[in-house]
Amino acid sequence: MSISPTHNEALAAQLDRAINNKTKPLGSLGVLEALARQIGLIQNTRDIALTKPSILVFAADHGVVAEGISAYPQDVTWQMVENFLARGAAINVFATQNHCELRVIDAGVNHDFGPRDGLTDRKLAHGTRNFANEPAMSRDLCQTALAAGMALASELEGNVVGFGEMGIGNTTAAAALMHKLTGIPVAQCVGAGTGLSADGILHKQRVIEAAVDRHAHATEALDVLATFGGLEIAMMAGAMLKAAELRKILLIDGFIVTSALLVAARMHPAILDYCVFAHCSDENGHKQMLDALGAKPLLNLGLRLGEGTGCALALPLLHAAVNFLNQMATFESAQVSEKSE
Amino acid sequence: MSISPTHNEALAAQLDRAINNKTKPLGSLGVLEALARQIGLIQNTRDIALTKPSILVFAADHGVVAEGISAYPQDVTWQMVENFLARGAAINVFATQNHCELRVIDAGVNHDFGPRDGLTDRKLAHGTRNFANEPAMSRDLCQTALAAGMALASELEGNVVGFGEMGIGNTTAAAALMHKLTGIPVAQCVGAGTGLSADGILHKQRVIEAAVDRHAHATEALDVLATFGGLEIAMMAGAMLKAAELRKILLIDGFIVTSALLVAARMHPAILDYCVFAHCSDENGHKQMLDALGAKPLLNLGLRLGEGTGCALALPLLHAAVNFLNQMATFESAQVSEKSE
Repeated sequence: MSISPTHNEALAAQLDRAINNKTKPLGSLGVLEALARQIGLIQNTRDIALTKPSILVFAADHGVVAEGISAYPQDVTWQMVENFLARGAAINVFATQNHCELRVIDAGVNHDFGPRDGLTDRKLAHGTRNFANEPAMSRDLCQTALAAGMALASELEGNVVGFGEMGIGNTTAAAALMHKLTGIPVAQCVGAGTGLSADGILHKQRVIEAAVDRHAHATEALDVLATFGGLEIAMMAGAMLKAAELRKILLIDGFIVTSALLVAARMHPAILDYCVFAHCSDENGHKQMLDALGAKPLLNLGLRLGEGTGCALALPLLHAAVNFLNQMATFESAQVSEKSE
Repeated sequence: MSISPTHNEALAAQLDRAINNKTKPLGSLGVLEALARQIGLIQNTRDIALTKPSILVFAADHGVVAEGISAYPQDVTWQMVENFLARGAAINVFATQNHCELRVIDAGVNHDFGPRDGLTDRKLAHGTRNFANEPAMSRDLCQTALAAGMALASELEGNVVGFGEMGIGNTTAAAALMHKLTGIPVAQCVGAGTGLSADGILHKQRVIEAAVDRHAHATEALDVLATFGGLEIAMMAGAMLKAAELRKILLIDGFIVTSALLVAARMHPAILDYCVFAHCSDENGHKQMLDALGAKPLLNLGLRLGEGTGCALALPLLHAAVNFLNQMATFESAQVSEKSE
């Protein structure tokens, strides 16, 4: 595993010239200009293109739900996977609208689906263990999940991959990862998840704080991931690492997906060059998590749904960045006068 | 002209129930939920739909350019109209990407195009007069422009209309309108436009301040519009009023388009019920102008290009709002368990 930084001064200058020659005031496409430049650097070319974008939705269950940290029962994980397969969830609607392939992966749901059209079976366990008592995964299982994610990313045809997740209890896992990897106090990492009350949030905080005390030895990224993470989070982190190695654009969704990236970035910091941050979630800790990564999200719509919905909604902006660079006229070609001041 | 407020308590409750029954945590689609609700109230139905979205780009010239308030020469107005017709501008690229019809209207460009495919000729003059010396338009001309805009909106087939503009010097006109209609000091209304230096911005401020003193009598909306506005701004305001009367969704772009809405809203405040604010522009005064209208924009991408580009980029979010309400499963239909806490 080796991820190359995208830094390339000559190419960056070439991209900037191309962007600045378009028939528009200098810098007037704002974030889209930075995005076009980043895509050029990722693809290592002036001739940028998006091919076959896809979103991988990883699903798994979490032993920590035994502590009563979620507003919804654990069965909702498999029920929502069924909803994905029946094309009834928000991510189905938004992925279809924006011509994005959707792939649903069972990384460790506590339910037997049997062989099902549209479901990629990579189930490694019927959920993790309860990290309030013991590590969620063994190091071995965690490494197996990372490797399974890498293998999945190797199979992707397209050059843009979005990440999504489903797993009742996974904002608790993500908040614990955030605390361990950024040092931000647990109280600032926890949020309402699918809809906890203020009391529920406080309880969730206490559960994490106690677990963090119990597993104080876990500090290195893989250990932190194994101790507090989930199978969907670990498999996603593996897929992110491989996708970046393959120089794909990584489209990062909300709180849980970003926590997987925190782990991956701790292992291979250059992965961040490949990341486009789809949105800032309304889940309490996400803004600080993004800040910790120096990330500037494209959208800020108060979403807190997960599933990769932010990725699907941000995809048109990636197309816009590519299209303006490829299709707009230049001042010269359109014979438009340049700035006179 | 009569614009009905969209308020309808029974329908709002029905829309909220439909939104809340979708398979997602309550409120988790954030701004998209508010948007679906607003579209339902505008269309006065639970069965919402977007049909044939279009963007009207109004172009005109401004006499006040004689004061040296723009970074680009006046010829850029007609040159950019040519660029629109040749499909080389940013708005062409984004409108095509998002399947949005584009209509370019010559409201008063200082150039003779002759009959041209794709250009709607509603030229009322070769630009306005210099408001540093005299009113930009007579009241009659201004009313003719408003009426021409109303007629254009009456012809639209679709139920979503975005507004865009092109006119060298029109951020100066828009800043003057903003000051007169909101009372915000001129210094906070002016910005760099297409790229003025700090000195250039200060000069622009002084030009507006002197003109405001000269035309202190203009306080009523039509007088303010005639005195400081532009033919594209007046025609756009007329089109907005008629489109709202016809219960269409109005998609509002950046600084200049919002200044036209300021005028329209002063005339008929209920127009605001029909407005979706596409983005917050990087042009200095736009955020305060939106605040003055109580507007919450969908996007915040540092754009300051005009042409209706923000509208085209925001359109996929309108589709997302409509699609989630129409296509997502309910907890009941998908047999997903509801909240347990």
